[in-house]
Amino acid sequence: MFDYYGEYVQRALKSNLDLGDSAVYDMLRYYMGWADETGAPISAMTGKAVRPTLCLFGCEAVGGSLHQALPAAVALEFIHNFSLVHDDIQDEDETRHNRKTLWAVWGKPKALVAGNVLRVVADTALHSLEHEGLGPKRSITAVGLLTESYLEMIEGQYLDLSYEGRPDIGMDDYLRMISRKTGALLRCSLNLGAAVGADDPDLISAMRECGRALGYVFQIRDDVLGVWGKEEITGKPVGADILRKKNSYPVVFAMEAATSEDREAIASIYSKPNLDDGDVESVLTIMDRVGVADHAQAEAARWADLAIQAITPLELSHRHREQIEEFTHFLLVRDR
Amino acid sequence: MFDYYGEYVQRALKSNLDLGDSAVYDMLRYYMGWADETGAPISAMTGKAVRPTLCLFGCEAVGGSLHQALPAAVALEFIHNFSLVHDDIQDEDETRHNRKTLWAVWGKPKALVAGNVLRVVADTALHSLEHEGLGPKRSITAVGLLTESYLEMIEGQYLDLSYEGRPDIGMDDYLRMISRKTGALLRCSLNLGAAVGADDPDLISAMRECGRALGYVFQIRDDVLGVWGKEEITGKPVGADILRKKNSYPVVFAMEAATSEDREAIASIYSKPNLDDGDVESVLTIMDRVGVADHAQAEAARWADLAIQAITPLELSHRHREQIEEFTHFLLVRDR
Repeated sequence: MFDYYGEYVQRALKSNLDLGDSAVYDMLRYYMGWADETGAPISAMTGKAVRPTLCLFGCEAVGGSLHQALPAAVALEFIHNFSLVHDDIQDEDETRHNRKTLWAVWGKPKALVAGNVLRVVADTALHSLEHEGLGPKRSITAVGLLTESYLEMIEGQYLDLSYEGRPDIGMDDYLRMISRKTGALLRCSLNLGAAVGADDPDLISAMRECGRALGYVFQIRDDVLGVWGKEEITGKPVGADILRKKNSYPVVFAMEAATSEDREAIASIYSKPNLDDGDVESVLTIMDRVGVADHAQAEAARWADLAIQAITPLELSHRHREQIEEFTHFLLVRDR
Repeated sequence: MFDYYGEYVQRALKSNLDLGDSAVYDMLRYYMGWADETGAPISAMTGKAVRPTLCLFGCEAVGGSLHQALPAAVALEFIHNFSLVHDDIQDEDETRHNRKTLWAVWGKPKALVAGNVLRVVADTALHSLEHEGLGPKRSITAVGLLTESYLEMIEGQYLDLSYEGRPDIGMDDYLRMISRKTGALLRCSLNLGAAVGADDPDLISAMRECGRALGYVFQIRDDVLGVWGKEEITGKPVGADILRKKNSYPVVFAMEAATSEDREAIASIYSKPNLDDGDVESVLTIMDRVGVADHAQAEAARWADLAIQAITPLELSHRHREQIEEFTHFLLVRDR
């Protein structure tokens, strides 16, 4: 799916950030991996563009034309990146994809504004849907879908911030949070593609369900990689999310499944202002004892099955069915 | 005009922020002056709601119904407040309207997210235009107008940040910056109201021109108040903008009109990391010598005349003509 849609996505993204001559667009081109800090063109490793790829796929799978969905695909990727730019500021993360983040290069005020610009660039792209011959009715539906889902995304980010340092976050809280923070935009990607490509409500809602399930696959695997990912691939050491005391799937599950003694040990470690390698090691040992990694992976696999089931009744072409199955499998086993 | 539209505006704003039960909406209600830090209802002094008032006026003046323009009016005010929330973070301002700012109460990460939520609330309000019987075509035009003008606003904020600490900013640079940072949204307020209320392009473009001129009146007066405003009314001491080394109208004009000796004195003061009261006094003395305050006020008055001229050819009702003339005069003489 990435091979099939990648070139369309990259070309559309670039042409939508080519317009502005203000220096803020140089910052954004830097962030997308197309320019260095001076604005000179380079080709750095970029993100996988999961969301626009899903959107174009969703549109074609239901019988629409890929070109009609390009503005929506571009909007999804820029909104995702807008949220990353602000996340980096909030978390004071200095690197992403092994490159310095925007605020680390240009300072927080400019990075904040640059993030806001990217969001407007996304909106502007989305508003060009009508020029692709979509007609006002489907265009308005598309704009409404995207607005709704990034409100959910931002509310999820807020929930995530409110959970920080709280030892009482249960699995239900956690799942509700990720279904918003990560799930909303992934669900929207397939949903939006389908809504641009077709009118049939059953078709659109099946794609939406598939996208909803893929959101869980994506985030649970992300959380597994945040603890057990290989440093040479993710750029982060084993236990990185523990060191940062993140309330991600592994620790939330461990706090529910471990013995009361082990739970107290984790709670006491998470209540420290700063953790050291020994603390991380202790939490990892408890997680091993409860089999957290296997359990999390099984849970992700369960959602992957649900994603496939959601679209089983649809009449998809052989190529589309194969692509979405491969894509789902990829989300489940990816190592970065 | 404020008396006439104020109640509609306040009611519409409140009903659009009543929906969410996440704690982030309590933060936003606090910011709007409707709740205290614990979420309990209060009635603090709020902003003047200049933008929604102009929008409703614009719609009625061209023959539209006020109710059709309410979603656009709400969107304008929330976008304005979204930008204030982020501005407060960037400038590390701890108070606004004599109340603590969001980040000063809840910290920067949550305040950043709350600002983003407010922007989406604005979008959601705008998308309800169609429910007011507006039809998809005018709705899409309205969404496009607002998107375009807040992109300009954000680019203006970026320009403003890039000007910081630069002694070479001329009057042309300055005017270009404020026409974006402040002007874009004020221009859009009248333009959007008119575009919701009528189809006639000449009518809409006359209102746009009027709004464009009002943007300069507003900002130049704002800059005058930033230097010579009365502390008991503005909450800021005389010379506040000088103390903060802001490149606002008075200093930009002084740097063009003063003797070379005085220019060097200002440049040398502005190149210090921190200014004291004596520095502020020196700059104020130079400004007095060049007559900056009178000149700035005359320039604002020139734009006020242009605002009125722009709509002179239109067939407005007596009430509407009187309201916009009073409003323009208010912008010119307001003391907070």
